[in-house]
Amino acid sequence: MAASTMVSLTLKISPFSQTQKTQLTSHHPLQFSTIKTRQTIRDKTLISAALIAPDGGKLSDLIVPDPQKPFKNEQALNFPKIKLSKIDLEWVHVLSEGWASPLNGFMRESEFLQTLHFNSLRLNDGDVVNMSVPIVLAIDDEQKERIGQSGSVALVDGHHHIIAILKDIEIYKHNKEERIARTWGTTALGLPYVEEAIRSSGNWLIGGDLEVLETIKYHDGLDQYRLSPAQLREEFARRNADAVFAFQLRNPVHNGHALLMTDTRRRLLEMGYKNPVLLLHPLGGFTKADDVPLNWRMKQHEKVLEDGVLDPETTVVSIFPSPMLYAGPTEVQWHAKARINAGANFYIVGRDPAGMSHPTEKRDLYDADHGKKVLSMAPGLERLNILPFKVAAYDKTQNKMAFFDPSRPQDFIFISGTKMRTLAKNKESPPDGFMCPGGWEVLVEYYDSLVPADNGRSPKLSLLES
Amino acid sequence: MAASTMVSLTLKISPFSQTQKTQLTSHHPLQFSTIKTRQTIRDKTLISAALIAPDGGKLSDLIVPDPQKPFKNEQALNFPKIKLSKIDLEWVHVLSEGWASPLNGFMRESEFLQTLHFNSLRLNDGDVVNMSVPIVLAIDDEQKERIGQSGSVALVDGHHHIIAILKDIEIYKHNKEERIARTWGTTALGLPYVEEAIRSSGNWLIGGDLEVLETIKYHDGLDQYRLSPAQLREEFARRNADAVFAFQLRNPVHNGHALLMTDTRRRLLEMGYKNPVLLLHPLGGFTKADDVPLNWRMKQHEKVLEDGVLDPETTVVSIFPSPMLYAGPTEVQWHAKARINAGANFYIVGRDPAGMSHPTEKRDLYDADHGKKVLSMAPGLERLNILPFKVAAYDKTQNKMAFFDPSRPQDFIFISGTKMRTLAKNKESPPDGFMCPGGWEVLVEYYDSLVPADNGRSPKLSLLES
Repeated sequence: MAASTMVSLTLKISPFSQTQKTQLTSHHPLQFSTIKTRQTIRDKTLISAALIAPDGGKLSDLIVPDPQKPFKNEQALNFPKIKLSKIDLEWVHVLSEGWASPLNGFMRESEFLQTLHFNSLRLNDGDVVNMSVPIVLAIDDEQKERIGQSGSVALVDGHHHIIAILKDIEIYKHNKEERIARTWGTTALGLPYVEEAIRSSGNWLIGGDLEVLETIKYHDGLDQYRLSPAQLREEFARRNADAVFAFQLRNPVHNGHALLMTDTRRRLLEMGYKNPVLLLHPLGGFTKADDVPLNWRMKQHEKVLEDGVLDPETTVVSIFPSPMLYAGPTEVQWHAKARINAGANFYIVGRDPAGMSHPTEKRDLYDADHGKKVLSMAPGLERLNILPFKVAAYDKTQNKMAFFDPSRPQDFIFISGTKMRTLAKNKESPPDGFMCPGGWEVLVEYYDSLVPADNGRSPKLSLLES
Repeated sequence: MAASTMVSLTLKISPFSQTQKTQLTSHHPLQFSTIKTRQTIRDKTLISAALIAPDGGKLSDLIVPDPQKPFKNEQALNFPKIKLSKIDLEWVHVLSEGWASPLNGFMRESEFLQTLHFNSLRLNDGDVVNMSVPIVLAIDDEQKERIGQSGSVALVDGHHHIIAILKDIEIYKHNKEERIARTWGTTALGLPYVEEAIRSSGNWLIGGDLEVLETIKYHDGLDQYRLSPAQLREEFARRNADAVFAFQLRNPVHNGHALLMTDTRRRLLEMGYKNPVLLLHPLGGFTKADDVPLNWRMKQHEKVLEDGVLDPETTVVSIFPSPMLYAGPTEVQWHAKARINAGANFYIVGRDPAGMSHPTEKRDLYDADHGKKVLSMAPGLERLNILPFKVAAYDKTQNKMAFFDPSRPQDFIFISGTKMRTLAKNKESPPDGFMCPGGWEVLVEYYDSLVPADNGRSPKLSLLES
């Protein structure tokens, strides 16, 4: 183990895993021909003793080992079938790789109730792990009827391929109003995840143990970025990381983010860590319609790394497969907890994490400070070091992004996500030093792809607005 | 201490505390001239080593000691004044006596957020205590303005009497929608506590440490039943209780309840306890309009004890000063936690505790089983033994209340609270053995007091409905 870690350091260090790097092909900068198989991972002892232990002590790995697959597939053919939605499939992905360890499948009622009421689960040994968002599978009356007395069901994708078996099932009532109220702190119409995945879903939830027959792939040219927690741990060990700090994002990276990440590394070095590694971890599942799509964000992130804004030697870029709930202080706990399972022991939290505007009122849905406060008090996250985000803004005196200095507010411009999107849509440039030019071009290209003609431009916004 | 406990056993045992008993006057069975003062309690070491420790190790006692009162009163005159509602005053009462130990005042934001998200508080020593309902004080913009930079405020009652000082205050936003959604699991209009205390309250919450200048009294002839946690602990020690089992109620006691309570005692004796004592603990604060008022319930409970349905030797009747939230699984944790502070180590939980009908939909607001499930998993309540309610019903073959036997359902009649109220309103009798005749007469008398003439009768309901 130690030897393998040492050897890896003699190789050229890259923000992408060594596996990805060596398999890089030229036709598309993000396209790789194959990726390291799960079996390769499983055959090694990968988790460095230096990395934080996963919740429950062991990563859940719910993929059926190859030799058992034919038998399990045969079995599954005889079970009642439940068709998974796109979001259901993302949760199967999340569960299968152990992001939600120690969960071993969709929640049964006891786990669902603990999540809703306590944002945490008490394990048999008395230990408490954080679990703030319900990971549940809804079925309707007709499906429940069809399942009857069967103890297992087969989960199939949109093409009727069998993806997984859910066994030792428990079916219980899906009180959608209560689930929504306790998870989002509102029942207002227009919450993206709620409208997409809950409002019209069935009146029952089905929990059980998952046996996943096919590793979840999306065939979108990005699968090689979807490193499992075990693969990430391997990569951190290979790089000999003695601290891993995670940065969750669902937006393009600008130089304010970059400043924050490089500053975090500086602080960790000051604290005595020798090799802190950044996990730059864009969310890859469901997002709302006006967020920048994953493939464009990945292109943008790549440019940012190419332009040297972040140091490839100490950065790992990977995709977090979870859907986005926009559930603010409740969801930020999930974002943090999942990164513990991937080996991160430091978590950067910004203003209003996983927040959005209230869908029906003229205000933000959550208090911008509640996310970091709730995170710092959350049961089961005591082991994680929470690093609150410093506010970065554009410093006109330096022509670059800098930490806001409250003694000279007149020197700073705040550039919101909305403002950034409006500029890119209008093919205007942001101030020099806001984002690397390559990254900005990707954004302009994306918005250009949405607007075929010259019409549909967004109104110009002054950058001097705060 | 041990000596005092021994001595007390030589006195005649009563369901009411010794203090109440000796002060009983004849003009009203529930009226006593004076009660033992708090100072008397404070001067003794009252808490038996055998009783369960209060949350946080020590009962909060927020009443200012007599010698300091003049000075504190003088101070308070100079502070900005906040007028308390009836429910606010009930919470001051609750806090002042330590029912919510280790809380020392209205919640600051950190406690409020932990309550909303985790139903529990992490103490400085790392210990976790349960705290599921927000105990907060709302103020409006004008009051906030008036407080300005003051570090303390004076809390006054409806007659402008100063009740308490709130010091080291923290003012933070009152997001009512989020508070309601996370506490009740719904934001539907018509939740009794919400409409009474939240919907039209101010947009700010004010937390701080309470210094209570006047013991809260209601002058309703029932104050002597309002034993503090310290007084209850004294009473349990005096009776040499080695187990205390609490029964929370807000309804008249029928023989099904009585069966349950006597059966619980039998089970505790079988478990090896020598002297299990019942805390029959009706809720005394705010209740919804169609609940039977406290004074009538207390009369009814007294008749039940007089009629020997419950054993006065092993029963303590006292009033729990909390308002009722009707917040189901969230509130039942509060009901249980407060009783730990009063010395109870066993808690009886029934179907749908603290539940009610959904205010706008034709269904119960909560799943009837969630209360006991959530209670059994709640953080901070691990020390409490949860005793789930067995279902009692009227057994026609025995003409009495008995535990329901699923092998012969045809022999049982379920008499709901609604049915009971309808019978009493119509001056009809329930089946023999449902409730002791004296208790039933009180109910008939209560409903009679509401309906001066013969009109306004409720429709007859068949007792054979299930």
